[in-house]
Amino acid sequence: GVLGSGDFARSLAVRLVCSGFRVVVGSRNPKRKASLFPAAAEVTFQAEAVKKADVIFVAIFREHYSTLCDLADVLVGKILVDVSNNTEINHHKESNAEYLASLFPACTVVKAFNVVSAWTLQSGARDGNKQVLICSNNQEAKRTIAEIAQVMGFTPVDMGCMSSACEIENIPLRLLPAWKIPIFLALGLFLCFFTYNLIRQVIHPYIREQKNKLYKIPIEVVNTTLPCVSYVMLSLVYLPGVLAACSQLYYGTKYRRFPDWLDQWLQHRKQIGLLSFFCAALHAVYSLCLPMRRSHRYLLIETAVKQAVEKKMTIWVEEEVWRMEIYISVGIIALGLLSLLAITSLPSIANSLNWREFSFIQ
Amino acid sequence: GVLGSGDFARSLAVRLVCSGFRVVVGSRNPKRKASLFPAAAEVTFQAEAVKKADVIFVAIFREHYSTLCDLADVLVGKILVDVSNNTEINHHKESNAEYLASLFPACTVVKAFNVVSAWTLQSGARDGNKQVLICSNNQEAKRTIAEIAQVMGFTPVDMGCMSSACEIENIPLRLLPAWKIPIFLALGLFLCFFTYNLIRQVIHPYIREQKNKLYKIPIEVVNTTLPCVSYVMLSLVYLPGVLAACSQLYYGTKYRRFPDWLDQWLQHRKQIGLLSFFCAALHAVYSLCLPMRRSHRYLLIETAVKQAVEKKMTIWVEEEVWRMEIYISVGIIALGLLSLLAITSLPSIANSLNWREFSFIQ
Amino acid sequence: GVLGSGDFARSLAVRLVCSGFRVVVGSRNPKRKASLFPAAAEVTFQAEAVKKADVIFVAIFREHYSTLCDLADVLVGKILVDVSNNTEINHHKESNAEYLASLFPACTVVKAFNVVSAWTLQSGARDGNKQVLICSNNQEAKRTIAEIAQVMGFTPVDMGCMSSACEIENIPLRLLPAWKIPIFLALGLFLCFFTYNLIRQVIHPYIREQKNKLYKIPIEVVNTTLPCVSYVMLSLVYLPGVLAACSQLYYGTKYRRFPDWLDQWLQHRKQIGLLSFFCAALHAVYSLCLPMRRSHRYLLIETAVKQAVEKKMTIWVEEEVWRMEIYISVGIIALGLLSLLAITSLPSIANSLNWREFSFIQ
Repeated sequence: GVLGSGDFARSLAVRLVCSGFRVVVGSRNPKRKASLFPAAAEVTFQAEAVKKADVIFVAIFREHYSTLCDLADVLVGKILVDVSNNTEINHHKESNAEYLASLFPACTVVKAFNVVSAWTLQSGARDGNKQVLICSNNQEAKRTIAEIAQVMGFTPVDMGCMSSACEIENIPLRLLPAWKIPIFLALGLFLCFFTYNLIRQVIHPYIREQKNKLYKIPIEVVNTTLPCVSYVMLSLVYLPGVLAACSQLYYGTKYRRFPDWLDQWLQHRKQIGLLSFFCAALHAVYSLCLPMRRSHRYLLIETAVKQAVEKKMTIWVEEEVWRMEIYISVGIIALGLLSLLAITSLPSIANSLNWREFSFIQ
Repeated sequence: GVLGSGDFARSLAVRLVCSGFRVVVGSRNPKRKASLFPAAAEVTFQAEAVKKADVIFVAIFREHYSTLCDLADVLVGKILVDVSNNTEINHHKESNAEYLASLFPACTVVKAFNVVSAWTLQSGARDGNKQVLICSNNQEAKRTIAEIAQVMGFTPVDMGCMSSACEIENIPLRLLPAWKIPIFLALGLFLCFFTYNLIRQVIHPYIREQKNKLYKIPIEVVNTTLPCVSYVMLSLVYLPGVLAACSQLYYGTKYRRFPDWLDQWLQHRKQIGLLSFFCAALHAVYSLCLPMRRSHRYLLIETAVKQAVEKKMTIWVEEEVWRMEIYISVGIIALGLLSLLAITSLPSIANSLNWREFSFIQ
Repeated sequence: GVLGSGDFARSLAVRLVCSGFRVVVGSRNPKRKASLFPAAAEVTFQAEAVKKADVIFVAIFREHYSTLCDLADVLVGKILVDVSNNTEINHHKESNAEYLASLFPACTVVKAFNVVSAWTLQSGARDGNKQVLICSNNQEAKRTIAEIAQVMGFTPVDMGCMSSACEIENIPLRLLPAWKIPIFLALGLFLCFFTYNLIRQVIHPYIREQKNKLYKIPIEVVNTTLPCVSYVMLSLVYLPGVLAACSQLYYGTKYRRFPDWLDQWLQHRKQIGLLSFFCAALHAVYSLCLPMRRSHRYLLIETAVKQAVEKKMTIWVEEEVWRMEIYISVGIIALGLLSLLAITSLPSIANSLNWREFSFIQ
């Protein structure tokens, strides 16, 4: 049974019908709404629909839950599936599912399907996340809904008892929350270092010697900026650990809470580290592109011509050769190690490591 | 208990014995077959074996299921595990497990272990997929088999009730079905563009100016072909979404099924996108290799010598310098963004994103 | 309830209190220990604590389990959670959890939380592995503990019945066991080939022609060593499969166990293959860096100057051009194929392939 006639209710009905279920839709105006649903779904009055179904998807807004109170008698003993989402994180004091359960104490309420979009429901789970998070205080009801989700082509994930409902309802509202601060940090650092390098490599030579070096902006200035950002970010990954250790030594206990800013910082280390790796990898690619540029070719030929005209046969500077060989060599090794760290941060790899292995690699 | 004496039955017996289970093998000719099984497994007549065991693995072909009907009496109340596979997708109307269940209504039938090969069973789950997909209408039986799979070193995955059996039986027959069309598409595009570039860069200069540029084939012609393929594939990822939106606008509803070709196309977008990324990444590596080649070195020296002999000191062309700097710079950024898309298509990353985050990144 | 007052007991109490549970800590000296626990946790005598709690975390060493025997009467019917770890793999004949269960047959024992470190418990599961492996012979108890783990922010993983306890207890002691042999193998091979290449490229020219080529050590010698290591490792991946097939042909059966060394070798193939890929990838990066070096630039200019002074206009050697183009081209293709193998070894990708697809790609 599906209560509601919105976008989500219709997609749900389409999907359930496609998966071979018999679907009854309950509407307050079944005649007008019938055309919106697939022909195989029976559209009838709410009380009628509830009587015919054992599992009822409540696809209406939280604000209208109370309008269902007239149906309380027919709902007794049924499984109600709360599929609702909020518009803001922690909008209400209690989760929608818990609110529904408090309105209908004689029903079994299950929270499910809210992490799935109407579009995914309708077209089938193709790309991206196929998980449907389910929680309920009733094991049997949870299992029934998990099996319905399975048949519909989703992967049910048991999230435990009803107290997880709040967490599940917050998930679809999340937009990479752990990445916001690290990304703005990286952008800020990039801007600072870029300005400094621009002044040093382009503006300063122009003012002092009237040399036009503007062509350096897209690659060379960016390429000297990236490793600076990468280094500062990498140090920001390891600094909070040191600060936390200092704080523990100072207070003489491991069981005192860290101040909020340190706690936040500790939580963002993984993201800061991955951005540091991203900058380092970009720096590697930019550096590898250097000899491909026309400017590199022209400078080389010009030097050669100058040397040939002056008949200078040796231009080998042992110190510069060694410096460059060692720079590149150390750079490759550093990038290799950083790649290893980046790979172990993939969820599927991290899940196969115990904490001893994880901290060994770190 | 194991019924059957084929390859799979023997591997199953070996593995069960190694995992510490007591194994009884039922055969119609126990004396002749006993030597095929490990010494620790008892080989006896079918009826005998069934009496001694609570869980019976039916390792015989679907065609011979009916030969077990004589054992119907002793099988009452036992758990039958259907491990069979078909030779074609959707070969029979009903799945093997459902057919077995219909033959023995007094037994509990569980579908399991069919996704595991005889080789993996025998040698233990080392590489690749360690999952054993299990489905049954009986929770208790499903749990028993899951625990047996666990002890044998596999990861049991609950696939819900018996109606999933058909899906589970089709899995081992699959051979990257979603990749076939995209790979042939990429190969076709590659051939077309390669021929065009070959004519333009090698055959045309040869006919017009008698210049031998054959050395360009392995790297330069391939390297100009790859980004063309990549671009066309990338546009094929986003085109069907636009067509689908147009179709929805035209018909005025989101709930009409798309035509089959569009549906197929929408389903292959992820694979087309990954192949586009693969071509782009190859193009990047080929481009980075350009200055490493002998031909590059020779052309450079030849130009330098020519300039030196003619005493031309300046060969700097501002426009060409700028063009190259911007090409490379934009190319690196595009590859970086494409890498991000490729990383989010990894299953373990996709599972940690909600659909809002997924569509934001897309 | 928590029994014990060590590091783990305190972290557990902190985390449980933070997750909203009411916590009673049982200690033999509650007055002295109370200050170690968070204020919200009640610290009292062991017998008192056990009476008040339904779920009791036994956070004491295996050696002291017998001291709890006085509490046997009050423990009847409670769920005991064994969180203990050993200091050596397979230290005792039976797992700690099974030993605890044998001491208190009237209790339900669950093994859980031992794979989590005190630090992770206290600070919340942020990075790395969030899984809590749970096993027990009692389904209901297992589910209760799984829900507690869920609320605490971990991902419970059902590991089946008590016989898995031994395996679960060994997990935190593991330190990349499958990687040790392959890594030492790779290091050994690297040393051998590095010495050979050092003698050939640096020491030999110095002795014979007094040429100082020391600058070649950090990049060129390493870069000729890496592909040698990579090739040998790659052949070591496919060799044991051939040996295993020969052994099967020789003995005429697939069901004979391989000798131990071959079995070990077969089990390490994945790690050897990944190290081979790592060496190949490093070789690619080193090779791409070659034209970036000062030495490359100097050699180029020197050749150009020499040619210009001698007025030689053509230095093009068709054979060398072709050889280099083909080397690079084949190298890129080989690296691309090897990358594909490396990607399919990611756990989340491997889990989405059936064995037919897996062996097709291999």
